[in-house]
Amino acid sequence: MYAIPAVNRSQLSATQAKIDGKTKPVAALGELETLAKQLMLIQWQRMTVNEGHSDLAFSVKTKLSLTKPMMLVFAGDHGINEAQVSIAPSAVTRQMVLNFLSEGAAINCFCRNNDIGMTVIDCGVLDAISDKDKAEYVESNVSFVVQRLGAGTHNIANQAAMSLRQVEQGLSYGEKVVTQQLALGCDVILLGEMGIANTSSASALMLALTSYSVDDCVGMGTGITELQLAQKKRLITQALARINTLNNPSLDGVEEVDNTVYIKTLLSELGGFEIVQMVGAILAAAKASVAVVVDGFIVSVAALVAVKINANVVDYLIFSHVSQEKAHQGLLNEFKQDSRYHTKPLLSLGLRLGEGSGAALAYPLLTAAASFYNNMASFEDAGVTV
Amino acid sequence: MYAIPAVNRSQLSATQAKIDGKTKPVAALGELETLAKQLMLIQWQRMTVNEGHSDLAFSVKTKLSLTKPMMLVFAGDHGINEAQVSIAPSAVTRQMVLNFLSEGAAINCFCRNNDIGMTVIDCGVLDAISDKDKAEYVESNVSFVVQRLGAGTHNIANQAAMSLRQVEQGLSYGEKVVTQQLALGCDVILLGEMGIANTSSASALMLALTSYSVDDCVGMGTGITELQLAQKKRLITQALARINTLNNPSLDGVEEVDNTVYIKTLLSELGGFEIVQMVGAILAAAKASVAVVVDGFIVSVAALVAVKINANVVDYLIFSHVSQEKAHQGLLNEFKQDSRYHTKPLLSLGLRLGEGSGAALAYPLLTAAASFYNNMASFEDAGVTV
Repeated sequence: MYAIPAVNRSQLSATQAKIDGKTKPVAALGELETLAKQLMLIQWQRMTVNEGHSDLAFSVKTKLSLTKPMMLVFAGDHGINEAQVSIAPSAVTRQMVLNFLSEGAAINCFCRNNDIGMTVIDCGVLDAISDKDKAEYVESNVSFVVQRLGAGTHNIANQAAMSLRQVEQGLSYGEKVVTQQLALGCDVILLGEMGIANTSSASALMLALTSYSVDDCVGMGTGITELQLAQKKRLITQALARINTLNNPSLDGVEEVDNTVYIKTLLSELGGFEIVQMVGAILAAAKASVAVVVDGFIVSVAALVAVKINANVVDYLIFSHVSQEKAHQGLLNEFKQDSRYHTKPLLSLGLRLGEGSGAALAYPLLTAAASFYNNMASFEDAGVTV
Repeated sequence: MYAIPAVNRSQLSATQAKIDGKTKPVAALGELETLAKQLMLIQWQRMTVNEGHSDLAFSVKTKLSLTKPMMLVFAGDHGINEAQVSIAPSAVTRQMVLNFLSEGAAINCFCRNNDIGMTVIDCGVLDAISDKDKAEYVESNVSFVVQRLGAGTHNIANQAAMSLRQVEQGLSYGEKVVTQQLALGCDVILLGEMGIANTSSASALMLALTSYSVDDCVGMGTGITELQLAQKKRLITQALARINTLNNPSLDGVEEVDNTVYIKTLLSELGGFEIVQMVGAILAAAKASVAVVVDGFIVSVAALVAVKINANVVDYLIFSHVSQEKAHQGLLNEFKQDSRYHTKPLLSLGLRLGEGSGAALAYPLLTAAASFYNNMASFEDAGVTV
């Protein structure tokens, strides 16, 4: 079902040779060279497998392409916020969706600044955006897609966030929105999210999927108090204890039988509507051999879930930044064991906003990598003798 | 002579309040918020002092401006390279200048990618670019300025790099090229350099101006051997010993009398033609209250020299990245004691190229800072209740 190949490495040394022939000392562009190589491996995979090019067709003229970059911002609400684990009430998720549509949020500024298109997906905010509200934004440069799985998840401390059926629907919705973008000519996907209390869901998933402790996985989100942090840890511990109960029929023995079923069950127990759809989006992009620029903690958790479903997904992930959320650095380390190419985050600016802000801010480094790879002169071209 | 004021801090709290009113959790944009504040302090200084605005005129409508960003790449050759302290012969400096003019170098790609203008200044490469060569590049998008102080410096291991008269001329040349850009409407300067063996000159100046050891100040440049590194350290130690000789009339007792004379003497003994002109450029930009985006090790040394002439210069410096050159991190720490606002480098990508590459790569973070400061909605605008 999720047949995702590793990237085609056949031209790795040819790509390296092309980079080393540029008019600069060997490796002088540091991480930007690694990034260019990763992009070429991804795009050559796409050209050979999805578009039928022959490996023999690779040459110094083969260029990196970054066409119609699209920021997908997935939004959803979280039942756990009834316990006030965030600085903001759940109503703010909807208010921020409207702010995105009126182009007033940080992510709007950064997408506009860096020529990135933007689509907001309502995956299940508490109160749906009415047709009357939508009519106000018909002229917005931001596209709006309604793919609601419900009106916020259930409180994961007490019960499953959603049904397995909602998980399947969410994965399919995520795939759909990516497939549409690729059909329009987009060849690089950036991911962001908005959902009050979604660090709780993300932390619970990290706790379930890694060997980190609850203290390692749970952080201050957008700036809660110590009291709220203690409450957040208690509820997440409770959620994990709940699903680890031996007589939980949905998990009992499933892990050994089918890993994908196990992961989907975890998503239904602990997930958020926006997280599930991001997992679907990441799987779809990787399946189509398209690079995915990962934002902060929440998107990275969705990426980890996707990697747990198919380890080859990691080849297609570009980590844009390490955020101020303390669990993020630990989470990024989880990808290292699987990664053959590049998991070092490009930026470290103390961001803790989400929305895709870090991904949009890092994007010019992708265009810079493509620019030097495609256009920089070789020693031969330039008559430089070193 | 170098009357450079500190930035006008009168609107710091108003600027902070404006940022805190944006639709995001407090401080959620991390270093980008610090950058926006620094830019506003610089630009408000310019508006009040240089353009005669009243402090009372500051309002939420006061915008950050980034107009006609200009990358100035200063090039020069170094006599010390007769001892082969670099991976490349000095002829490569000239070849790279021609590569800049034919728009084939990394810095060309990054300036083009990020809409930054580019000017190359011949400060004294070994062989001047002939009129015939220049004619080949008349259609280049890169401007070429000839401000030669000579045909490469003398070998600093054995004698002064240049005369005090050349230092004065160089400072004046650097000022001139900046003043011309500002007159054309540019309000942000980016600095880069090209000069085979110029890390030797930069390391020698760092050694003379700080309490770091020779091991701390001298690194691998663009990738020399251990043997070359030992030779480089020996020659730099020799250069320092030479100028520390008590009967060196040019330095004896000068430091107590006049710091600027002392610094200029150090520049004449250890400097490079491109380094001297960059010092002049930085002083001129700071004097005009214009932000200067500092690239890697060499430009940072020029910045340190400028700060030693007038400590207020640090207010105008934006550090774009920390490079792979091991001395650079230590050097950046030198600015911390003086800095009231921002010295954390924006990027850390393992670059070791120079040319201004890190400054050009970081530039989209400046435009992003201006974009969110100028355009992001406030809670009031957006009807967000948190």
